[in-house]
Amino acid sequence: MKKSLIEFERGLYKPKLPETLRFGVELQKRETVEVADEIKDIFPHTSGLPVVRFLRGEEKKYEPINVGVILSGGQAPGGHNVIAGLFDGLNHFNSRCRLYGFIGGPSGLIDHQYIEISFDQVDECRNTGGFDMIGSGRTKLETEEQFEKGREICEKLGIKALVIIGGDDSNTNACVLAEYYKRKGYNIQVVGCPKTIDGDLKNEYIETSFGFDTACKVYSELIGNVQRDAISAKKYWHFVRLMGRSASHITLECALQTQPNVAIISEEVSAKKMSLNDIVDVIVDSVVKRAEGGQNFGTVIVPEGLIEFVPEMKKLIKELNDALVSDSEEYSKLRTDDDKRYYVMQSLSRESRDFYVTLPNKIAKQLALDRDPHGNVQVSKIETEELLIELCTQKLKRMAEEGTFKGKFSALSHFFGYEGRCSYPTNFDSNYCYTLGFTSAALIMEGMTGYMVSIKHLTAPSDQWIAGGVPFTSMMTLEKRKGVVKPVIRKTLVDLDDEPFSFFEAHRAEWADATNTYLYPGPIQYYGPTELCDATTITLQLEHPYHHS
Amino acid sequence: MKKSLIEFERGLYKPKLPETLRFGVELQKRETVEVADEIKDIFPHTSGLPVVRFLRGEEKKYEPINVGVILSGGQAPGGHNVIAGLFDGLNHFNSRCRLYGFIGGPSGLIDHQYIEISFDQVDECRNTGGFDMIGSGRTKLETEEQFEKGREICEKLGIKALVIIGGDDSNTNACVLAEYYKRKGYNIQVVGCPKTIDGDLKNEYIETSFGFDTACKVYSELIGNVQRDAISAKKYWHFVRLMGRSASHITLECALQTQPNVAIISEEVSAKKMSLNDIVDVIVDSVVKRAEGGQNFGTVIVPEGLIEFVPEMKKLIKELNDALVSDSEEYSKLRTDDDKRYYVMQSLSRESRDFYVTLPNKIAKQLALDRDPHGNVQVSKIETEELLIELCTQKLKRMAEEGTFKGKFSALSHFFGYEGRCSYPTNFDSNYCYTLGFTSAALIMEGMTGYMVSIKHLTAPSDQWIAGGVPFTSMMTLEKRKGVVKPVIRKTLVDLDDEPFSFFEAHRAEWADATNTYLYPGPIQYYGPTELCDATTITLQLEHPYHHS
Repeated sequence: MKKSLIEFERGLYKPKLPETLRFGVELQKRETVEVADEIKDIFPHTSGLPVVRFLRGEEKKYEPINVGVILSGGQAPGGHNVIAGLFDGLNHFNSRCRLYGFIGGPSGLIDHQYIEISFDQVDECRNTGGFDMIGSGRTKLETEEQFEKGREICEKLGIKALVIIGGDDSNTNACVLAEYYKRKGYNIQVVGCPKTIDGDLKNEYIETSFGFDTACKVYSELIGNVQRDAISAKKYWHFVRLMGRSASHITLECALQTQPNVAIISEEVSAKKMSLNDIVDVIVDSVVKRAEGGQNFGTVIVPEGLIEFVPEMKKLIKELNDALVSDSEEYSKLRTDDDKRYYVMQSLSRESRDFYVTLPNKIAKQLALDRDPHGNVQVSKIETEELLIELCTQKLKRMAEEGTFKGKFSALSHFFGYEGRCSYPTNFDSNYCYTLGFTSAALIMEGMTGYMVSIKHLTAPSDQWIAGGVPFTSMMTLEKRKGVVKPVIRKTLVDLDDEPFSFFEAHRAEWADATNTYLYPGPIQYYGPTELCDATTITLQLEHPYHHS
Repeated sequence: MKKSLIEFERGLYKPKLPETLRFGVELQKRETVEVADEIKDIFPHTSGLPVVRFLRGEEKKYEPINVGVILSGGQAPGGHNVIAGLFDGLNHFNSRCRLYGFIGGPSGLIDHQYIEISFDQVDECRNTGGFDMIGSGRTKLETEEQFEKGREICEKLGIKALVIIGGDDSNTNACVLAEYYKRKGYNIQVVGCPKTIDGDLKNEYIETSFGFDTACKVYSELIGNVQRDAISAKKYWHFVRLMGRSASHITLECALQTQPNVAIISEEVSAKKMSLNDIVDVIVDSVVKRAEGGQNFGTVIVPEGLIEFVPEMKKLIKELNDALVSDSEEYSKLRTDDDKRYYVMQSLSRESRDFYVTLPNKIAKQLALDRDPHGNVQVSKIETEELLIELCTQKLKRMAEEGTFKGKFSALSHFFGYEGRCSYPTNFDSNYCYTLGFTSAALIMEGMTGYMVSIKHLTAPSDQWIAGGVPFTSMMTLEKRKGVVKPVIRKTLVDLDDEPFSFFEAHRAEWADATNTYLYPGPIQYYGPTELCDATTITLQLEHPYHHS
């Protein structure tokens, strides 16, 4: 098949492994993390395990083993390299190992859709983006029936270990699966790898999830380009919505990389109970200040999940969902849009109604009329950046009439999302993913199950990275989901006390004013100076500063 | 000021000049192009001039000269390098030369807004994107009054030459200015440089305009990423609208770089008088074929100007504009949207009315209701990709009901535009722009006026490029604009008989079917292998193949 030049060139790149993994390995057991009794009760076989790391050791002889690998959930740059690292790792330990890929995500395990992964296939995909080698899917592995279907195919193929590459949910399920197989005595190990561009799968043991680095750099390139356009044309405010439904790590990282005039962080909105009006004020303040300095242009970046963090909007959406789900038949008989909106408004609390009427027409309509098949408001389809533009325009118009705003305000909107999920991985993600895969192989060879791969010291040069594993259960907390308390691997939101947000907080006033402090990060580079090509995110550098020894 | 790492690193890059410009130069006069009598009549002083090129020559002594530079129109990557090349070129020929930058485009010349450009300023901006060094603007230099204001400031600053960096319109005006100054005996030379990401300023002498290379590579990176997402997730058709109002060079080049399932070229639509329905059929054909092969995903790319090339839409828009401009008072009294639409429909011809009623609601509304201050339909705001999604969805739904379509169709839309205009220029554009600027300096030193810089053999290594100039008048044709016949520099649309389109035509059936032939060009690289980092567009390579000697 014809390849682009870069695909060919990237195929030649050899991802770097930590020094400790290059020859023989020795598994070192370290601390055991205390977990809640409820978690111990649910996971008797996979809690109480020690955190482990690999040291350089003697070359040992391992038995050959057949392994299955699954990509779960949304794409993230570097997925193919996890598979490549796993494949090469298995081969490194015993060249008679076999690797099976389940097709289309977890459903491949249940429906017995698989391929045996060949060296050529791996070679085709080294350092490429996308999950197209075996595909991914959103089926959740949750029921014993599914687990049993999985066992069947594993037994048939002689698979003794599964590697599940996914986010917090998929790894939570991987833990349940590990526990189940161990309890049943099936002798199928389960190991997970932390994947998500959102960057919210991180904790004491997992410094970052893969894909976050690349996605943020793709978005930052684009934001930088748009900023340079803004400062050149001097006539538009660009409002950019970025991926990130639950957590704002992407928006925060992109803000650090590009220094836009305004960045809104959902976690702050939630913590400070900011209203939509408060958010608009933050933006309008910058517009006014910059206009006074003659700069009638700027950039605003927001996470796509933002409006769900605004308390009044959250309440409104909840009421709308409740109202329409219960009365959908009556509602469906209404003919005109206006009738429907009136009907919807009647069902709202006074507070929500007061808020609803302040919303721009288009959004009000969308909230009232566009429903998913379950009758719920399609929050993901609401264009937050358009909403903010509309509200800012209204407010600035009023201010202009009152004489408190003398500038111009013209805005354009952007959504950067799909562009970042399947980019060629950065050198960092290429190396990180390859190491994740290779370490999975090592954990499997050492007989571990119920572990997530943990690579530490990621801001150090990659040969100094520390590879190991952490029991899933060590990262679990109890959370109420849909009314039921469940143990889950915690989603880590932006912590307002942590370095990345503090840095942002300390600088944002300076970015918001009329002095232009934009940064233009440019396209991801693979071949230039190492500080340009190999460094990871600012978030990670602030969280885990590397001290040159 | 704080810089991103890449901005710092790119600042160190030394753009490459053709061999012939590195030392002394000798101006060689070549053929004189025959032009129409009407053009000779309008431009007696700037027609009949020879095409020129520079050979390597003796180092000569030139008098120092003050020069003014103007950026005109929309941003294109590399503008700063034209200025850097001009600055360095002037210094190369005589270090006592001075360079003034007019602020905010042509209006800076008229309103006497300028800065003297310093070495530090040039150094700040080497190989960066954007036009923010001196800004750009869309004021047209057309009237003698403006020309006289320009003369005033030139005389005040001792400026003997102006370099105007712009597209076809700006260079046409530059020619008028050159003619005027020469006729008046003002002793102010005028030289132009070909700028536009649209790639439509090209002809026998101008192989490409600067910025086209970079912009297409930025868009192709994004299209490639989205394609990789499509083939990984296997559930969406991505419809991408790309910049390019009048010409489809960008869409065609991006198609060659990424091999999407469908690319629509406006010039073909116009030549074949394709209806909106015909275009929908092209897309639907691919959707059906791919669905039959189990591929319920794909990519469609279209130029933003597309609908203006569809004959029936062109007619409708004209009628809408005519109707509303003449009756705007009566119209403005109408209260409801429906009244307005009904009113609008009454004014249409039967043909246009029949077409109008087939349009999706949202677009029909937009056409009827959204007007610019002159009462015209805001064609640029019509989201062609959304229109096509809507029409394809309707058609596929009908086909599903009839049993002729058994697949799934779910679509997402994108617009890639502002992201590409201010990217860091590629190595090609960095070198090309620097050479354009440097050659302007050489032309000025040789006393030339009424010339556009012409760099040829652009697909050869840059040291072999041939630098020279071509009289503006040699590129002129007579065109009727707003009822008046005017001499203009021709805008070159996609030629359906030329290599780039022929290549596309020969391959598109293969790209449209169920075999996935996507290419993923990845981010622009600056530091890797030369074939990856320095090669220019496929368009240019097909139009001007380089034969290794």
